[in-house]
Amino acid sequence: MSDGATTLRGGIDLGGTKIQTAIVDSTGKVLGESRGPTPTSGGPEDVAGAMAEALREAAGEAEVETSALEGIGVGSPGDVDEKTGVVTGARNLPGWDGSFPLGATLTGSLGAEVRVGNDVQVATEAEFHLGAGREFKSLVGVFWGTGVGGGLVLDGKPWLGRGAAGEVGHIVVKRGGAKCPCGRKGCMEAYAGRGAMEAEARRQHADGVKTDLFKLMRKHERDRLTSGIWERAIDNNDHLAEDLIARAIEALGTGIASAVNLLDPEAVIIGGGLGVRFGERYMEPLTKEMGKHLFLDEKPPAVRVVTLGDLGGAIGASLLFAR
Amino acid sequence: MSDGATTLRGGIDLGGTKIQTAIVDSTGKVLGESRGPTPTSGGPEDVAGAMAEALREAAGEAEVETSALEGIGVGSPGDVDEKTGVVTGARNLPGWDGSFPLGATLTGSLGAEVRVGNDVQVATEAEFHLGAGREFKSLVGVFWGTGVGGGLVLDGKPWLGRGAAGEVGHIVVKRGGAKCPCGRKGCMEAYAGRGAMEAEARRQHADGVKTDLFKLMRKHERDRLTSGIWERAIDNNDHLAEDLIARAIEALGTGIASAVNLLDPEAVIIGGGLGVRFGERYMEPLTKEMGKHLFLDEKPPAVRVVTLGDLGGAIGASLLFAR
Repeated sequence: MSDGATTLRGGIDLGGTKIQTAIVDSTGKVLGESRGPTPTSGGPEDVAGAMAEALREAAGEAEVETSALEGIGVGSPGDVDEKTGVVTGARNLPGWDGSFPLGATLTGSLGAEVRVGNDVQVATEAEFHLGAGREFKSLVGVFWGTGVGGGLVLDGKPWLGRGAAGEVGHIVVKRGGAKCPCGRKGCMEAYAGRGAMEAEARRQHADGVKTDLFKLMRKHERDRLTSGIWERAIDNNDHLAEDLIARAIEALGTGIASAVNLLDPEAVIIGGGLGVRFGERYMEPLTKEMGKHLFLDEKPPAVRVVTLGDLGGAIGASLLFAR
Repeated sequence: MSDGATTLRGGIDLGGTKIQTAIVDSTGKVLGESRGPTPTSGGPEDVAGAMAEALREAAGEAEVETSALEGIGVGSPGDVDEKTGVVTGARNLPGWDGSFPLGATLTGSLGAEVRVGNDVQVATEAEFHLGAGREFKSLVGVFWGTGVGGGLVLDGKPWLGRGAAGEVGHIVVKRGGAKCPCGRKGCMEAYAGRGAMEAEARRQHADGVKTDLFKLMRKHERDRLTSGIWERAIDNNDHLAEDLIARAIEALGTGIASAVNLLDPEAVIIGGGLGVRFGERYMEPLTKEMGKHLFLDEKPPAVRVVTLGDLGGAIGASLLFAR
């Protein structure tokens, strides 16, 4: 590996539950990777420490020193300042309500330049360059997981707006509708996010609606309704699970259609935990729901499921050095 | 004027009720203009004939031959193919359900190169270069009139998608909501477009809801509820008119917020017949409604009303030669 070492890059995908890292060469090939849990206590320093340790592990597998990397990209939740590497208000991470200089801290511990980008945006760019979006010049990435995040590539380039573009999950699908985890009403995420789906399932279960969702959750020793639990329930024809997935698909189709009416992109790429698990299975109802609201319904964009899987975020982060 | 003649451009804004033309120099200054009714019978050839005649009138005022113009831009409704100048399905124009080579026809009669663009997109670009959007690099144009059209400028350049971007009026604001003139349900235009507002007023009036809207319409010898009629009714505290405008503002605020959450632009520019008349008057409720749905509500975009008025479309069309 050593002859290519000067063009190797690191990528770290910082998620609420796991930290995924990769060492990637200039062709997109992954030479080393690691995956571990995100600290659930402490503060940003502890999270940064776990990130550095995880990247060192991947670098060891790739037989490269972290200081020899061209750079290390990070895909982070929260409000990311790409210019300074400061991350603010990453609320699903421990003690991270304020601002923390994530880029500078990691540069200090890893000895390489660090760039920080939005987690979902870099995953969208990874799919654009190396995954499901390779054949297109413009795309909307929709990451359907605990929340619903998004990223944009327009005319081959990331579109970040003033730094916060891509909030596809907070496109309103029903004015005055369901309460969203973001505190507002009627967002796509209020119907389609796994967090909102679980809250609705708990409400209906408490109201006496029959479901095996929580029985399955306990049986598989989970403390929340993971995408795997949803899948098992649906495989067993659990009516509540089916209803809530159908409701999620309606909201996704509606909100994605609004985004398409505004941007007219070549493609929509579906990722995220639920997107990877259910994207192909529900492709037909999803595109049907979209079609109901597409202004040019005879010319819909391509809709594809991500192909880089769990590694997309880390690979996309490494591509912050290829922009 | 003759020394600047080589850099003069023509612009034609083709509307459903009027044809507005302008002769514009390279600084954006208007040296001649004309305005006349759009033919209501015949076919595309008749419309093209009226357009050529109107442009000749403006050229006469500017003391330039049409064949001496650098080019003539057209802002057209319908499905515009910018590459070929063919316009398809301009349904509010007489006999224009099919395709018509508008660009080639006008080149034949006027002796200059003709480029055809989307009417609302070119009006957005005019505001970007010369009007309310001059100080911004990215903006969403929202043209609130009979329908609700839109245009996008991102990083200083028009964003057309695959040719049909900017349909901000068909962002869904309420899944399963009101029927839109486009045939779908719950679009912003279904609540905010003047056409939809008039249809709703007629329905409620037929159901016995009291209103002076139609009395005012007859008094001022109109056959539809123009923006002027709406304004008079509101000045007289007509409850139905107030209710329907409030409903329109809610829909506009919601849909614009969805667009902002997706694109995070620096500014939103409000134009169109109702936008020009009511934009400043309802700026506070509009931005308040937007704020309810903005994901980053502490960092809203600037919201401005167009400054080029009725000439924006024709000036923007001339700018098709400055892109």
